[in-house]
Amino acid sequence: MRKLYNFMEARERLSTVARKTELIPSSVFSERCDNEVYIKAENLQHTGSFKVRGAYNKMAKLTEEEKKRGVITSSAGNHAQGVALAAQRLGIKAVIVMPKHTPVIKVEATKKFGAEIVLAGEIYDEAYAKAVELQKEHGYTFVHPFDDEDVIEGQGTIALDIMEDLPDVDIMLVPIGGGGLVSGIAAAAKQKNPMVKIIGVEPEGAACMKAALAHGGPIPLDVVNTIADGTAVRTAGKITYEYVKQFVDEIITVSDYELMEAFLLLVEKHKLVGENAGILSLAGLQKLKEHGKKVVSVLSGGNIDVLTIAAMINKGLVVRDRICTFAINLPDKPGQLMKVARILGEQNANVIKLDHNQFKNLNRFSEVELFVTIETNGKEHVQRVIDALHKEGLQVQRVNTPEDAIG
Amino acid sequence: MRKLYNFMEARERLSTVARKTELIPSSVFSERCDNEVYIKAENLQHTGSFKVRGAYNKMAKLTEEEKKRGVITSSAGNHAQGVALAAQRLGIKAVIVMPKHTPVIKVEATKKFGAEIVLAGEIYDEAYAKAVELQKEHGYTFVHPFDDEDVIEGQGTIALDIMEDLPDVDIMLVPIGGGGLVSGIAAAAKQKNPMVKIIGVEPEGAACMKAALAHGGPIPLDVVNTIADGTAVRTAGKITYEYVKQFVDEIITVSDYELMEAFLLLVEKHKLVGENAGILSLAGLQKLKEHGKKVVSVLSGGNIDVLTIAAMINKGLVVRDRICTFAINLPDKPGQLMKVARILGEQNANVIKLDHNQFKNLNRFSEVELFVTIETNGKEHVQRVIDALHKEGLQVQRVNTPEDAIG
Repeated sequence: MRKLYNFMEARERLSTVARKTELIPSSVFSERCDNEVYIKAENLQHTGSFKVRGAYNKMAKLTEEEKKRGVITSSAGNHAQGVALAAQRLGIKAVIVMPKHTPVIKVEATKKFGAEIVLAGEIYDEAYAKAVELQKEHGYTFVHPFDDEDVIEGQGTIALDIMEDLPDVDIMLVPIGGGGLVSGIAAAAKQKNPMVKIIGVEPEGAACMKAALAHGGPIPLDVVNTIADGTAVRTAGKITYEYVKQFVDEIITVSDYELMEAFLLLVEKHKLVGENAGILSLAGLQKLKEHGKKVVSVLSGGNIDVLTIAAMINKGLVVRDRICTFAINLPDKPGQLMKVARILGEQNANVIKLDHNQFKNLNRFSEVELFVTIETNGKEHVQRVIDALHKEGLQVQRVNTPEDAIG
Repeated sequence: MRKLYNFMEARERLSTVARKTELIPSSVFSERCDNEVYIKAENLQHTGSFKVRGAYNKMAKLTEEEKKRGVITSSAGNHAQGVALAAQRLGIKAVIVMPKHTPVIKVEATKKFGAEIVLAGEIYDEAYAKAVELQKEHGYTFVHPFDDEDVIEGQGTIALDIMEDLPDVDIMLVPIGGGGLVSGIAAAAKQKNPMVKIIGVEPEGAACMKAALAHGGPIPLDVVNTIADGTAVRTAGKITYEYVKQFVDEIITVSDYELMEAFLLLVEKHKLVGENAGILSLAGLQKLKEHGKKVVSVLSGGNIDVLTIAAMINKGLVVRDRICTFAINLPDKPGQLMKVARILGEQNANVIKLDHNQFKNLNRFSEVELFVTIETNGKEHVQRVIDALHKEGLQVQRVNTPEDAIG
């Protein structure tokens, strides 16, 4: 690990390429954890995530000779765009290796910064191998997404932003994937004020840094399973591990369920879109043991596909009992559907979807299965609807439950 | 219309209750209209819209006697929350009349600021009538959502924010519902710099201010039909009409289709959520005749239900040809589904939904109708998929088209 940090210089270097993003006070998240919470909105950073900071810092510090040869990396995500934008600004060549089946949308978003895209391999590891091969062949500099001192130094500039806007910050919560972001922020924050507490947040299903700390060094996870795909990292970095060991006070983990709830709150109350990896720090707020403190939650990115947003909303509403599906067995005789419709109307339950299946039984005169999806105001409302249906002699079974919604 | 405006004083008055919201540079909207575009993010304002500015300004200026009696308004939307928050801060009583079937979520959001909610009437006009009745009975002050000099003065403070951050702004685009926001911004901006151009933006289906200007005074629209429900106003205000006539340079209108596209861009590129009424000004950018100017687009609010967001995304992706449904007639013999699946796989089209209906024809051996919904990369990709299916002898018909998606 480096002895001398130059976060101030890095910040100066980044001044034309990275925005000083907003620090937004949050009454809703403050209430939820009984602290004074601010959101550091790096989702509003150029390219939609913090990654451009580290990539640019690394690339701007290359020698003229290295710059002439160009850089390479492998990534299908935020790091790809960060490197591409940085290369464009510095006028150097960037080659980005992406797995073959990367969505065209992501390829285009990177290409538009002028980067050369190479599609190779079925999975990330194969794209990575291709990048290493091309690097050797052409003498490119490899820009690692997290395990690099200069990348870490670039990410650390976020802490300087925060401490300029909120000098008496007590705690910073920071998402961890490979650990580059938290390493930079922790080192920079502690340099300015060793009393600032740094808490890393990992997904339960991909807590590689927690595993590294327990093991005494980076160790691959057996299984990686999280909706926070941007932090679905199997093995923590070697360099970042050293930073975390030295500068990070605590690591907490959050579930997919908690991420979903944080996502909905962020959209509903803050009108901000975050990607699941980016909102780990918001989901983690509720696990703070501290109260009455000034807490900054680093919202590290917002690059989430709109179809995924629609799916998150639907699942999130099921989790909240705001959407609910019942199966109702009806005697197959006229008037039954009307009865159900009347009860739902009386209970103010808005029907979203109806599926009436006459072919459930061989004896079609016995029963029809009706699937009804309704919008409700929450748990109590769902129970009132079920009670009302039961009261009129209907057999009702809830089909989706909050627990079903995940996975 | 008032002779003397005190926007500076209003701003001072609002300093503890309204945030100076962010002015966010937008490369994506800049490119689309060939101007230098900034977004004034009033969706990040407390309560999620600009409305608290006008409501608080009005209520803070009441006499002690009036404050003691309290205020009343009728609204199921942003104005309700604005009045409720303002009343809470000023420690005065607020009664909000909402139509009976207002979603509980909206009722709760207003109630949480301590306002008294009265549910009355099936539609807004009936809630309004009830509010007028209660006002007379109890001597409350009615806080009009737009047609009020003090409300207008409060909204005008947004122009001061903008001109402080971007002194050489050339043009401001502002959504118009009843006209309170544009009246305030236009009067305040022209007072500081008469050269600033103010352009109002209305939905095509609810252009009440454009109608008022053409008619020489406010006149009710025959039909109001727009997805921008926050600006679905039948008749422009009397006072706001005077302001608009004097201070607004131009009014442009945008379609639901254009709003949907602006919504997706805002979410995807800016990680910001806007309500349809709030993003009129973003949708209007493409209609600017001016180029190379510094343009501020006022994003006036972000209060949109998450289920509506999911629907906007789905419809928006159909409009963009990113989601597409085909009906395919298949001979009812084994292997046919596999053939379709193979072709779709080869063409890299991700299947979202499949509906295989064997009962289309009485002679079940003749044909099966298969409905396939796929995710594509856009128009050309859709055409490639259709061509590939045709080439293998399949009868294909597109079921949803971008035109179908609206309405």
